Amino acid sequence: MSLENILGYVAAALTTFAFLPQAWRIYKTKDTNAISFWMYLIFSLGVFLWLVYGVFISAWPVVIANAITLLISLWILWMKINE
Amino acid sequence: MSLENILGYVAAALTTFAFLPQAWRIYKTKDTNAISFWMYLIFSLGVFLWLVYGVFISAWPVVIANAITLLISLWILWMKINE
Repeated sequence: MSLENILGYVAAALTTFAFLPQAWRIYKTKDTNAISFWMYLIFSLGVFLWLVYGVFISAWPVVIANAITLLISLWILWMKINE
Repeated sequence: MSLENILGYVAAALTTFAFLPQAWRIYKTKDTNAISFWMYLIFSLGVFLWLVYGVFISAWPVVIANAITLLISLWILWMKINE
């Protein structure tokens, strides 16, 4: 595997799983006050488009990474809406 | 420009500028309590690697989008650290 691919996979994993600690913090504290509704709405839409883009170019790592991020991002958005 | 490229540019713009409303909210309220330190630390690292990846494959849109995201993400991390 080339260095570029390794960089891409590690970057994808980090930017995907980075949202887990944020979801965990909200789950534990039930505090979403400082969380921006608009961020997670826009971000979820962007991640969804990345997912569609991944399908278009048949890049399954892109599809999988963004599907996971989308689920976490939508959950955070849901918790913010139900604040 | 192909549909795929349009999708990619729109997705990049959304996932980049999505962080602006979060930064704006923190700037206005000075409240970072619900924000996860670990999320923005891990996310900033991931975005930095995406930036390096973009340089490796000479994909300047990837470099620019992630450079902007990195600046915003580091600013949010800085505000969280100085809570």
